[in-house]
Amino acid sequence: MAEIVVSGMRPTGKLHLGNYHGALKNFVALQEKYKCFFFVADLHALTTAYKQTEDLAANSEQMLIDWLSAGVDPKKANLFIQSDVPEVSELNTLLGMITPLGWLLRNPIYKDQLNELLARKYAGQLKGDENTPLAERVKGLADEDISVYGFLGYPVLMAVDILIHKAGLVPVGKDQTAHIEIARDLVRRFNEIYKTEDVFVEPKPLFTEITVMPGLDGHKMSKSYHNTIDLGEDIDSVRKKVMSMFTDPNKKKATDPANPDGCVVYAFHKVYNPDYKKRCEECKAGALGCVACKKQLFELMEPQLTAFSNRRKIFENDKAQIVQIVKDGAQAARASAAVTLAQVKKAMKVTR
Amino acid sequence: MAEIVVSGMRPTGKLHLGNYHGALKNFVALQEKYKCFFFVADLHALTTAYKQTEDLAANSEQMLIDWLSAGVDPKKANLFIQSDVPEVSELNTLLGMITPLGWLLRNPIYKDQLNELLARKYAGQLKGDENTPLAERVKGLADEDISVYGFLGYPVLMAVDILIHKAGLVPVGKDQTAHIEIARDLVRRFNEIYKTEDVFVEPKPLFTEITVMPGLDGHKMSKSYHNTIDLGEDIDSVRKKVMSMFTDPNKKKATDPANPDGCVVYAFHKVYNPDYKKRCEECKAGALGCVACKKQLFELMEPQLTAFSNRRKIFENDKAQIVQIVKDGAQAARASAAVTLAQVKKAMKVTR
Repeated sequence: MAEIVVSGMRPTGKLHLGNYHGALKNFVALQEKYKCFFFVADLHALTTAYKQTEDLAANSEQMLIDWLSAGVDPKKANLFIQSDVPEVSELNTLLGMITPLGWLLRNPIYKDQLNELLARKYAGQLKGDENTPLAERVKGLADEDISVYGFLGYPVLMAVDILIHKAGLVPVGKDQTAHIEIARDLVRRFNEIYKTEDVFVEPKPLFTEITVMPGLDGHKMSKSYHNTIDLGEDIDSVRKKVMSMFTDPNKKKATDPANPDGCVVYAFHKVYNPDYKKRCEECKAGALGCVACKKQLFELMEPQLTAFSNRRKIFENDKAQIVQIVKDGAQAARASAAVTLAQVKKAMKVTR
Repeated sequence: MAEIVVSGMRPTGKLHLGNYHGALKNFVALQEKYKCFFFVADLHALTTAYKQTEDLAANSEQMLIDWLSAGVDPKKANLFIQSDVPEVSELNTLLGMITPLGWLLRNPIYKDQLNELLARKYAGQLKGDENTPLAERVKGLADEDISVYGFLGYPVLMAVDILIHKAGLVPVGKDQTAHIEIARDLVRRFNEIYKTEDVFVEPKPLFTEITVMPGLDGHKMSKSYHNTIDLGEDIDSVRKKVMSMFTDPNKKKATDPANPDGCVVYAFHKVYNPDYKKRCEECKAGALGCVACKKQLFELMEPQLTAFSNRRKIFENDKAQIVQIVKDGAQAARASAAVTLAQVKKAMKVTR
């Protein structure tokens, strides 16, 4: 039997090329090798953005359409929206009962995210240093916006997402292992308290080579930096963005040698051009000008992007199919989740 | 339409007279006046006793049998077991997203319970005083046992129990209003964030005269003090307990005047004897001896206790009926809960 993989994405609206190369492309590869559960993490979105939910449902659907358009196949993988599976909330409530607060308060990712959120909102107003207890740091700030119960508990929810489908593997970046650690620790604690080894699987990280896609300005591609090329974006808009990318300012003429390191066009070539090493040499040698280099990049991107857009249009216009996929996905995920939940309740003696 | 009342009890096993006079008798009265939801709070039991679940399911059932035997009527009130209603966990997860941690950390009942639990377990080992932050007080102690995520969040779960059935009234003791305060605050916060007033009802406390039943030793009747008379207890055992109750040690002979204050027998008379004021005078005047006084008390208690025991035997022997009541109760509670949950999801825009 194929190993089980679980992975989710927060519904942030339409995806961009950074999301595609960083995660979505990986989904398409994973579905060929594993039994995959891919979910739109709308409950996770609520842990931080509970005040901005206007577009939550629409974003969830749009993200799913992006997945489908990118080649994620509901016949190969289980696709579902997290909040469609009530068993997730049930297990979340149950596992919360055995989760030590210390694990959550000490969780480095929680600390990082909290600090990032607080720092963004209250730059300069935070008290103490990072060794100062949370309660002290946020004292006097309008912490009610950020420091909420659900946010503190999101590693529990994340563990639930993984454990409820008995996933053995979770695709993560090297800096995200803390999430899996809590899931693994929860399995061990559950097994110890309830004297069982038959309910959960201890998940392992599945490290995959992640393509880091720069944004148009060379920083990490991110919606909040306004430096994205979106999946399904109008191809003329993409052309303009590519043609106006910054290049080495020391290169004045087409024949000047230049430095590809730090050039956004070259960074894109690394992703789209199998011969990018040759391009590196050509650039350094002044063998071609930036305009030609950009044109070629666009020509390499264009077929993929157009194919995606064409697929996207089909899905966008077939609302009924999306509804059906969401419905079938929920049903399959619920069936899988219900098995684990029943075992958990039995082990915890909650069931008569 | 009758106002809606919600109340629950943690399944601690068979109930005693303290539970009966303190809460259960009240259930029987409330069901005549209101639309009642009475639930066995098995999830709440997990917030503190997640390691002692051996008897959880059995205790839940036994408690329900006690309710029925005491006259709580499934035709008049909705009786259910909390964990049978997954909507409770769903709303718990959703409302957790908007609950400020500060509300929970500052909750006096949380603090009290935590201190009680810690003090019981680590008598003398706690650090600092009650103004010392939680994290400091438990440092170095095996806090993982007590300081868990679910315990911190139990006021959220309690608010959910109330709000999910749109209860306008919650029977509470004078010292328990903090629980309702968090439920009320959550309603206001939800309404403000999601610009709605149509989802929840702000619950109000329903203060009822609560009979405080002393235990056999004069302290509060409590399982952990081993000073209880249990509902359904063998009547000869009850007789022995009554006849061996302590009385005023200054009364040596039957005709000595005595002080009824602090006498357990007299405290019981207050509950079972409508003419208890007369007994007070008689006691002070030395009009009768303690043995006679106890005998009379037992005679007053005996019909009620025997009637209860007889009813209990019928329910105990009709497993099928209990199963059906639990099933019907869950179904009715789920129907009520589903209405609110759907409205919550719509307001939070979690639903497509």
